[in-house]
Amino acid sequence: MKTLLKNGSVVNVFTGEVTRADVLLDGERILGVGEYERADLVRDLTGCYLCPGLIDGHIHIESTMLLPDEFARAAVPHGTTAVVADPHEIANVCGASGISFLLEASESLPLTVYFTLPSCVPSTEFDEAGARLTAADLEPFYSHPRVLGLAEVMDYPAVIAREADAMEKIEAALARGLVINGHAPLLTGRALDRYIAAGIGDDHECSSVEEAEERIRKGQRVMIRQGTAAKNLETLLPLFEEPWAHRCMLVTDDKHPADLLRGHLDESIRLAARAGKNPVTGIRMATLWAAEHFGLKRMGAIAPGYWADLVVLGDLADMSVRDVYCAGVRVVKDGRMEDFKPPQVAAALRNAVYSAFQMRPVEHFHIEAQGRRRCRVIKLLKGELLTEEWITELDFDRENGVDVERDIVKLAVVERHRGTGHRGLGFLSGLGLKYGAIASSVSHDSHNLIVAGADERDMVYAAERVSALGGGCVVVRDGKTLAELPLPVAGLMSDRPADELARRNEQLRKRAYALGIPEEIEPFMPLAFLSLPVIPHLKMTTLGLLNVDERRLVPLFVDGM
Amino acid sequence: MKTLLKNGSVVNVFTGEVTRADVLLDGERILGVGEYERADLVRDLTGCYLCPGLIDGHIHIESTMLLPDEFARAAVPHGTTAVVADPHEIANVCGASGISFLLEASESLPLTVYFTLPSCVPSTEFDEAGARLTAADLEPFYSHPRVLGLAEVMDYPAVIAREADAMEKIEAALARGLVINGHAPLLTGRALDRYIAAGIGDDHECSSVEEAEERIRKGQRVMIRQGTAAKNLETLLPLFEEPWAHRCMLVTDDKHPADLLRGHLDESIRLAARAGKNPVTGIRMATLWAAEHFGLKRMGAIAPGYWADLVVLGDLADMSVRDVYCAGVRVVKDGRMEDFKPPQVAAALRNAVYSAFQMRPVEHFHIEAQGRRRCRVIKLLKGELLTEEWITELDFDRENGVDVERDIVKLAVVERHRGTGHRGLGFLSGLGLKYGAIASSVSHDSHNLIVAGADERDMVYAAERVSALGGGCVVVRDGKTLAELPLPVAGLMSDRPADELARRNEQLRKRAYALGIPEEIEPFMPLAFLSLPVIPHLKMTTLGLLNVDERRLVPLFVDGM
Repeated sequence: MKTLLKNGSVVNVFTGEVTRADVLLDGERILGVGEYERADLVRDLTGCYLCPGLIDGHIHIESTMLLPDEFARAAVPHGTTAVVADPHEIANVCGASGISFLLEASESLPLTVYFTLPSCVPSTEFDEAGARLTAADLEPFYSHPRVLGLAEVMDYPAVIAREADAMEKIEAALARGLVINGHAPLLTGRALDRYIAAGIGDDHECSSVEEAEERIRKGQRVMIRQGTAAKNLETLLPLFEEPWAHRCMLVTDDKHPADLLRGHLDESIRLAARAGKNPVTGIRMATLWAAEHFGLKRMGAIAPGYWADLVVLGDLADMSVRDVYCAGVRVVKDGRMEDFKPPQVAAALRNAVYSAFQMRPVEHFHIEAQGRRRCRVIKLLKGELLTEEWITELDFDRENGVDVERDIVKLAVVERHRGTGHRGLGFLSGLGLKYGAIASSVSHDSHNLIVAGADERDMVYAAERVSALGGGCVVVRDGKTLAELPLPVAGLMSDRPADELARRNEQLRKRAYALGIPEEIEPFMPLAFLSLPVIPHLKMTTLGLLNVDERRLVPLFVDGM
Repeated sequence: MKTLLKNGSVVNVFTGEVTRADVLLDGERILGVGEYERADLVRDLTGCYLCPGLIDGHIHIESTMLLPDEFARAAVPHGTTAVVADPHEIANVCGASGISFLLEASESLPLTVYFTLPSCVPSTEFDEAGARLTAADLEPFYSHPRVLGLAEVMDYPAVIAREADAMEKIEAALARGLVINGHAPLLTGRALDRYIAAGIGDDHECSSVEEAEERIRKGQRVMIRQGTAAKNLETLLPLFEEPWAHRCMLVTDDKHPADLLRGHLDESIRLAARAGKNPVTGIRMATLWAAEHFGLKRMGAIAPGYWADLVVLGDLADMSVRDVYCAGVRVVKDGRMEDFKPPQVAAALRNAVYSAFQMRPVEHFHIEAQGRRRCRVIKLLKGELLTEEWITELDFDRENGVDVERDIVKLAVVERHRGTGHRGLGFLSGLGLKYGAIASSVSHDSHNLIVAGADERDMVYAAERVSALGGGCVVVRDGKTLAELPLPVAGLMSDRPADELARRNEQLRKRAYALGIPEEIEPFMPLAFLSLPVIPHLKMTTLGLLNVDERRLVPLFVDGM
């Protein structure tokens, strides 16, 4: 069937030109750009712009807490027609089954979901993850047509040291001529050279122009990230000019549901345009230049033979999306997503991800100690994922060491993949919690249960409530659930729509503030990173406190008693 | 082994910057660009420039008449470290064996010879070629690591009509994600759209800026050609500016040995620089942008992990090549090629290409006719490959129709692949030949024997001499060979070095001029195209005269007697 989109202004991503032209589609492909009169279906786009569908070069769909179909419903109305997803989070919980689940759950959507394969599961030897993925485990996935390469190789020390495990995964992708995504924040000079020389093709962790320019000069493509936690766009605005721009892409990495409802790559382009940058440059980054990086043939442009993923915009600088075409079919009309049938996933895979939360019942979070003891306390730093080690004296005869006056609450991480009962237990400062407890099954990268509380019994209640939900986030006080967000899919994702998740998240936040957490803190964000053993300095794991810098577990007590 | 190239000015093809820096090589790859002191081998490049090795995106090695090793000896000193060759000519003579021969003969050279597979063998149904290559015949070659795609799809009417044979070849390359080279001179508008939409990725036949711009806007990459016969660089100079430049490459297509000795892509960049264009733009076209088009990973740049193909230049605008590194090894020093061992080719393949010339002995070139007859004469147009049909009266009682006063000589094309004795015989005007005969086994695309003569016996002698040589070019007068160039490899190539071929070509030319051919004509050039059935208007084939426009054979006589 031939569809004619008449009288629009067409963005040519090869040249940067914007020209009045008609676009003729033949089924799922573009037949031509020029002047046409007749087709089976003619749509008038007078006054509108037409650009290729936007491609997010790096996203963890799990961070949106949405299943791929609900993710599509939220993202496509923003002009997104393809993403390259790294299923790192679900792989840490469910291993290869998690990757297979997301592959099946993203089949035949009105959005093309590509994947790069998680390279670091678990992230370190201190992670009690739900799985361990070797090069051999990744191997079978390379035959999938939507797998484009190896995902962010975070363990850059292993790459620089040319460690066998890391190199085996890299060589497998290189041998297939596939992309290897990088992740090397602040790495520079010869160490960066050695990392890149291994074959790492891009980086999405640049937080300064200098960092980005060094990477581009050294052959990497830079992904300009604008997500929920990390927002690098404003800092990296100079990259919207040549000679940098054509070596850049736009990505989000992690994006929470409420944020995603507000905007996706359209937002990045809009923000850049408001700062005086040419929106066409942003569109080129988010289309052709991303497609070329990933070796996606005949995608990312409006030209003969190209895949008919198209966005109709009311305005270029505002990136106001009116309609979206996916493979020649209009899937968004006047900003509203057309309904579609979610893909069927094999029962075995569904069962695997819906039964992934396996925690041994928690009896208590009591620490066997008396009197005043000098302890290591994890200290949160405002607005940062970094923590500090704070050594201070706690009175175990009063509240078992908890001291809300000094903003010291209890923190526990409980293994939840195999019901081992392993748990780390200690103290946290800087969250501001005064009453009750908050708990979550989203805690990077191994996603064990994490719970912080001013009250020991509320902590137990919160942990058990998350367990009863099969994963999720809860806010508890006085033995009662004040708010909860069930995340039954691997303890990471919901099967509800984005707006419902956004509302529930908002409720969680409000209830958490009622427990004393100050409003400048996004309550579940520090919680999600307090057990990530690759960010300095002191973290809590299922094995206990970890000194990240020294890569060793350390005892809670420092008084040697 | 680590090699350090110190103190050069390094061309960064990602950004276009030229910066003072050291380059450290580790074996065949680049380790880093920066400041280094120590290595196993240190070479000082003070005052010199370093750029990536140049990549010719489209060349027929057969047109240089050189075997790949001798081609390397001639081309690499010009900074060429890789070419993408289309073995179209040898495939027309020897079929799959010809392709295999060139693959083996180009193995492990100090030059990387990639291939795209000839798509149109034979070029038309009127070609009595030595082989016919179907999609199934090409199939096995795709597993070769140096095969990058499908070569110039010249039969654009077949593509536009979506004919099964052509589409089968195209689909096979598309399915592998490989490049499909185009060849569609002057095609425009919707016909061009339809040709491109089939998946054709580039074009090297642009002879105007408008033609090139249309192709770039429609997603193709444009190859700016500067060869021996077709020189498009000067016309296409505006493409050296953005937004066009980054969608262009530099190629030569056909280049004769003497021309190749004078320059290769270095010459294109130099010419552009003399016309005021930035030589760095030319270098980017001839390196990274070519590598990206063909999906060559980590080639075409000086950056960590990239293949260490490098050129040391005395000057950027002059492109004066001093040294060339191939995979980290210096293969050209001070402009002189280091010696290397030519590759071994399997005996069966050698035999196939060295015994490809199989012509039935020629007894005469006499035409059975008496008196004055009205005939179709092929008329050469000065400086063009186009010919015209000239109908005039010839006197067969005098010299069997030959009339050197009116510049009318005899022309014959004799089948030489299977000894069928098929031959076309007629008349040619515009060559200027007054005595003797010239003959050649290089005649596009089927490379049958072609001979033009003022003297019938000399024509027989010339044809038999070419046959005795197993292919080649000869100039004959009064039953004596005045000059000859043996081309024993498929009747297309010599196994001698470029300078010897250049000298012998020069001799051929001089002797041909002594036969009356005016010096503004390159004598064997019109001969090489007089039987090519895809260039209008009247051509000679082994089946007789061909009206190209009407795609039908026409009789010599038009008087109906």
